[in-house]
Amino acid sequence: MSVQPEECAAGVDAARSARAWLTRAVEPGDALMHAYVGSVGPIAAMCSLRSARAPTEVQALVGARYDEDRVSADLAAAVSIGARLLVPGDREWPAEPLHAMTVATAMGVQGLAPPLALWVRGHGDLAKLTGRAVAIVGSRASTSYGGEQAAQLAFELAERGWTVVSGGAFGIDAAAHRGALSAGAPTVAVLAGGIDRSYPAAHAALFERIAQDGLLVSEWPPGCAPYRHRFLIRNRLIAALSVGCVVVEASARSGARHTAGRAQELGRPVMAVPGPVTSAMSVGTHVLLRDTEARLVTGVEHVIEEIGQLGVDLAPLVRGPDTARDALSGVQARTLEALPRRRPMLPDQIARAAGLSVREVLSALPALETRGFVEYADGTWRLVRSS
Amino acid sequence: MSVQPEECAAGVDAARSARAWLTRAVEPGDALMHAYVGSVGPIAAMCSLRSARAPTEVQALVGARYDEDRVSADLAAAVSIGARLLVPGDREWPAEPLHAMTVATAMGVQGLAPPLALWVRGHGDLAKLTGRAVAIVGSRASTSYGGEQAAQLAFELAERGWTVVSGGAFGIDAAAHRGALSAGAPTVAVLAGGIDRSYPAAHAALFERIAQDGLLVSEWPPGCAPYRHRFLIRNRLIAALSVGCVVVEASARSGARHTAGRAQELGRPVMAVPGPVTSAMSVGTHVLLRDTEARLVTGVEHVIEEIGQLGVDLAPLVRGPDTARDALSGVQARTLEALPRRRPMLPDQIARAAGLSVREVLSALPALETRGFVEYADGTWRLVRSS
Repeated sequence: MSVQPEECAAGVDAARSARAWLTRAVEPGDALMHAYVGSVGPIAAMCSLRSARAPTEVQALVGARYDEDRVSADLAAAVSIGARLLVPGDREWPAEPLHAMTVATAMGVQGLAPPLALWVRGHGDLAKLTGRAVAIVGSRASTSYGGEQAAQLAFELAERGWTVVSGGAFGIDAAAHRGALSAGAPTVAVLAGGIDRSYPAAHAALFERIAQDGLLVSEWPPGCAPYRHRFLIRNRLIAALSVGCVVVEASARSGARHTAGRAQELGRPVMAVPGPVTSAMSVGTHVLLRDTEARLVTGVEHVIEEIGQLGVDLAPLVRGPDTARDALSGVQARTLEALPRRRPMLPDQIARAAGLSVREVLSALPALETRGFVEYADGTWRLVRSS
Repeated sequence: MSVQPEECAAGVDAARSARAWLTRAVEPGDALMHAYVGSVGPIAAMCSLRSARAPTEVQALVGARYDEDRVSADLAAAVSIGARLLVPGDREWPAEPLHAMTVATAMGVQGLAPPLALWVRGHGDLAKLTGRAVAIVGSRASTSYGGEQAAQLAFELAERGWTVVSGGAFGIDAAAHRGALSAGAPTVAVLAGGIDRSYPAAHAALFERIAQDGLLVSEWPPGCAPYRHRFLIRNRLIAALSVGCVVVEASARSGARHTAGRAQELGRPVMAVPGPVTSAMSVGTHVLLRDTEARLVTGVEHVIEEIGQLGVDLAPLVRGPDTARDALSGVQARTLEALPRRRPMLPDQIARAAGLSVREVLSALPALETRGFVEYADGTWRLVRSS
């Protein structure tokens, strides 16, 4: 199939489409492709690649995929499942976390090039969620000890306002996501296949739950299979989207150690939870503790101590300071009290919780918004974290 | 009771008696007393102290004990239980291991002065045993996990020719001693009271077993009670008599952490075995791993890696090289085979084990000695380790 010039028309939508095309044509993480797209722009890059006129080494990265065009179908598939494509420049693009990838790539570290675009599904805001995020990763074949530690750590980090990022896999990943969810907090799962595919299939319900408040994130368009090599490519993104990486359990040959290595290459502190020396699932964490800069952590305080050193303030109090709250009327105060820590609520839900009429709540909420205690979105109200 | 000049007559026995007197009069480890005895000699030191004419600060260290003289009774008690007093200059005095205490004391570290003398009980040779020794210490209230780790580590170190040094207490200490004994190897228990006292009483049989091939060691004369403060004084000796210190389990306020601190002050590497973060008995080891130079070890190879760096060669093969053994006659070879790894045996025991006549064994042994395979002591024969 030859490429018609009109398909390469410039414009914002064209750039977005071009990046969508690139996500299917190119396996991410490659420094050469990243440099090429960066130098000629996504539209010209796509046009050159589709007409097989890109520099030989760059063209080789696309292989037989050069004449495939499923952009419209991919974008339509995304819309149909409530997903969206994020590209650099979007407000929700996690530019700050990803910057470390650009720096590492510029310094010659292989395989750490930033994503060309991100397919995301869920109600969370990627930029906001990753502004204050910790990766919790580990073995698929975790023990009950490891699962409990991952869930507990995730719960306590989520309670303190941290987003838990993991890979959506069996074992430690799932325990971490569930721990965060059980705190009523959003969590981010970075997948190695399309965001419409549940891999593993048994996690379909978990992924739906994650998408409610948090996000499913992938560099591959809908429908793409989670090939083995994609997990390794994906790991760098788990590391990049968090300020630190905690390995809870890892066997001697665990992918979690790979993620930890990526985190270290990105300058993120790596932490490891020790375990019984008799457990095969702690062999990898003990290797990390012996042979790398990884810090031993036994609980959330240790994790906060590590990642708090990165200029990220300790978790603010969820409720506003007493002085500001003292100025509220009785109805306003009861309305504010009724709001849960992180979940948005409809006005009539708030009214039931507060024991007030819907009319009273509807009059109190705008006043609370003016004072910066709550915010409105899509008919619901939620607490403002920094209030 | 006043001191008569003739009691202070010079001589080897007098110096030994003076040091025996000092072990009852003085709580060990004090730099001031150590310097005083070093400068005036043990006899003059004893004479001055007994007549209350030592420098005020030194005299104060003896307190009301200055006019007490139980040297004859203490020495007789030692003889009656098969014990002996070691003093500097004795062939069996562990001068090399203790040298680090002199250095640390000279550098101003408090409470690390070397012992003035050592009461020992058992068939082991203190200088030989501590030439290649590792301390394994930990909580009295250890878990089954910790006990197993201590016993396994001690067993494998003993198998490789290392002496396990510990404190004879419940929990990790006892597990370490038993692990070494189960490998048929000698072990050293450094006690905080007299070597005739079983503390804890339940360890009477264990201590008898330790004394068979190894040693019970104490800075206090027979009959002395294991006062609480003596355990802290004793800990420095466990650290000094080993080239490295492994902490297997330790609670937040464990004495094992004190021993580890002493080892670090003496320049000995400290190692710690991790455990479940849910275990109170691993809190102390995790603190060591987080907040000190302690190295995480999960097995004997890791321990050997640490202590092997100290110029101590890896354990030699217990049996001689095949080439040398090939030259032995059939009777000589069977005699050599019959000798246990570390235990000395009487010729008729060897004969029974080898299925040879006593006469054949008696003719083979000198030839084996000439070739460096075995050595003779007190009527018994044992394998030479380096053969």
